[in-house]
Amino acid sequence: MDTPYLLVDISIAVAQYHRIAAAFPGTPVYYAVKANPEPTLLIELVRAGCHFDVASRNEIGLALAAGADPVTLSFGNTIKKAEDIAYAYAQGVRLFAFDSLGELEKLAVHAPGSAVVCRVLASSKGARWPLSRKFGCAPEMALDLIRWAAANGLDPAGVCFHVGSQQLDPGRWEPSIADAAALFARLAADGINLRLLNCGGGFPVDYQTEVASIDKYAKAIDAAVASHFPARPALMIEPGRYIAAPAGVLHTEVVLVSRKSYADEPRWVYLDVGRFGGLAETEDEAIQYRLSTPHDGAPTAPVVLAGPTCDSVDILYQNAGYELPLALRPGDLVRIHGTGAYTATYASVGFNGFPPLRTVLDRADRADRRAAG
Amino acid sequence: MDTPYLLVDISIAVAQYHRIAAAFPGTPVYYAVKANPEPTLLIELVRAGCHFDVASRNEIGLALAAGADPVTLSFGNTIKKAEDIAYAYAQGVRLFAFDSLGELEKLAVHAPGSAVVCRVLASSKGARWPLSRKFGCAPEMALDLIRWAAANGLDPAGVCFHVGSQQLDPGRWEPSIADAAALFARLAADGINLRLLNCGGGFPVDYQTEVASIDKYAKAIDAAVASHFPARPALMIEPGRYIAAPAGVLHTEVVLVSRKSYADEPRWVYLDVGRFGGLAETEDEAIQYRLSTPHDGAPTAPVVLAGPTCDSVDILYQNAGYELPLALRPGDLVRIHGTGAYTATYASVGFNGFPPLRTVLDRADRADRRAAG
Repeated sequence: MDTPYLLVDISIAVAQYHRIAAAFPGTPVYYAVKANPEPTLLIELVRAGCHFDVASRNEIGLALAAGADPVTLSFGNTIKKAEDIAYAYAQGVRLFAFDSLGELEKLAVHAPGSAVVCRVLASSKGARWPLSRKFGCAPEMALDLIRWAAANGLDPAGVCFHVGSQQLDPGRWEPSIADAAALFARLAADGINLRLLNCGGGFPVDYQTEVASIDKYAKAIDAAVASHFPARPALMIEPGRYIAAPAGVLHTEVVLVSRKSYADEPRWVYLDVGRFGGLAETEDEAIQYRLSTPHDGAPTAPVVLAGPTCDSVDILYQNAGYELPLALRPGDLVRIHGTGAYTATYASVGFNGFPPLRTVLDRADRADRRAAG
Repeated sequence: MDTPYLLVDISIAVAQYHRIAAAFPGTPVYYAVKANPEPTLLIELVRAGCHFDVASRNEIGLALAAGADPVTLSFGNTIKKAEDIAYAYAQGVRLFAFDSLGELEKLAVHAPGSAVVCRVLASSKGARWPLSRKFGCAPEMALDLIRWAAANGLDPAGVCFHVGSQQLDPGRWEPSIADAAALFARLAADGINLRLLNCGGGFPVDYQTEVASIDKYAKAIDAAVASHFPARPALMIEPGRYIAAPAGVLHTEVVLVSRKSYADEPRWVYLDVGRFGGLAETEDEAIQYRLSTPHDGAPTAPVVLAGPTCDSVDILYQNAGYELPLALRPGDLVRIHGTGAYTATYASVGFNGFPPLRTVLDRADRADRRAAG
């Protein structure tokens, strides 16, 4: 098959869903559709009982097309056009996130009576793909916004936060849970009784090295909730990477192996996929995928790994210490593991004339699909 | 019209082509198709007498579909699959760039007898979108590669280099021209007579501030060639940004204006286009576009400017000192100027469910097209 393509094994994603759902008993799992919106994956997650975190009008459409009940959708993006809020509401979505007065004003008009959840700024220290201050507001402002929501025909349900994607420290949720508990307490004094704590995503997967088990994360969150809340609120979580990443293997071909000079420099290995073809999370070498080649086990040496476009920022790894076999040659297949999340939909429509990354379902999934179709 | 969209005025791009062609009399201009492969633009550039620098099989197809003669194409990407070289050769392309033995070996088999041009490493100091060591080889290696090409049935035509895109220093071409002249001289001593000097692209456009005129660049290059070469070689240039950037205005809507806290922080302005929707060159705030709003002239204050996705790296400008009117509100149209190059094809296929950036041709162009159709 012509490379590059992303081979997705949906059964792995479904198993990951069951694993995280079991680690958080009684807590609904909202799959972050943005991680991988492959329709067959969404259908299987609906069957498994999953809920969905959606970022846009199109993601709502995809979830509903997969059979999701609109009341299992959370419109988690805090940056929504008025007409997209109205669309969501008309489709039956009743749970929305916000972090500003501007967004609440739109929600009050276009989603009256809906449950709204205030996103509070959180530290994402320890995350491989950290979050900036782009989302969330300071707790003092959250207080006023939630009061405004209550006074303007919305249902102030609770608080959400996000500790950053691929968060390697299970203890990182605790400070935000403490902040949320303080907000719950202060608002209860005003007669506003919040009930929902959305602990977001960030649950990591093994790329090159083993991460703590999902049970460790669940226990840390459970303990933090127990210690900071006098009465346990309803919880929800929003994993994306955790469910989808292990389900994908990106298949790519070596296009060229070269050196830049006769000095003792690393070889340059150019693949037929790069940062603009789906590997956007290699920006600043943030996500370091595991690679396999037909020569694994043979002697290796350092390489710079780059994509095929004429753009010089299209370099995957230069400083991360990657080594590949000396026997590697143009035409060799390289597998990039753990690429089921945040890859295919990031791909450019055609930068440098290279087509977007295709998704190919694993044979077993395709057989299921034919049987079901 | 629903935002976001890129409004392209093809007549501006054609005028830019004529401007640069006039500044470099007798030098063929190879438009870098990757900058903007809009079919109508390519048709008009063919009519104007433009040649084309292509990066991939698909870009070759686009140029040929626009009516380009294959002998006016240069396959300038130094990272090519063997089958794509064979495709280019079968289509009549006879000019190829390389910077490694691995690439020459493919060219010798799949494009025998073709003119090949060796890309030499150049400094891109002074460029807003600099090039890394990804492309090019050291001059000592170039010597051996060109000798290898001559001995293996290829036509070693010359040398190419690239000083980095949006290069603000007209003097930056001179060191590479000197390197090239030295290679010409050393190879002439071997009986290999190079004849072609490809000075690449990098010619800048006015984004926020005025850059030196294209005539200044042409004169600096002409003077450097005259001073380093005993006999003037054939020249070629490969502008992309210079031709396409001024032809585009990205139309986007304000989705949200917010603050993160009650501290005296900048406002956050969220647009319906961001880094994954076509503004990839705002990475590290490299390319700083000029913005206009319906409130221009009214009092302004500092802002952080961000895109609509749930990805926190989807921030356009945080440190570049952008100010926007205090009157700016959700729904306001913001025009991003000079966005005709390196935008629409960079856009993701659907990250976060947002559709790719559409290109809309200016009314006059559409009328021409109807008349021609």
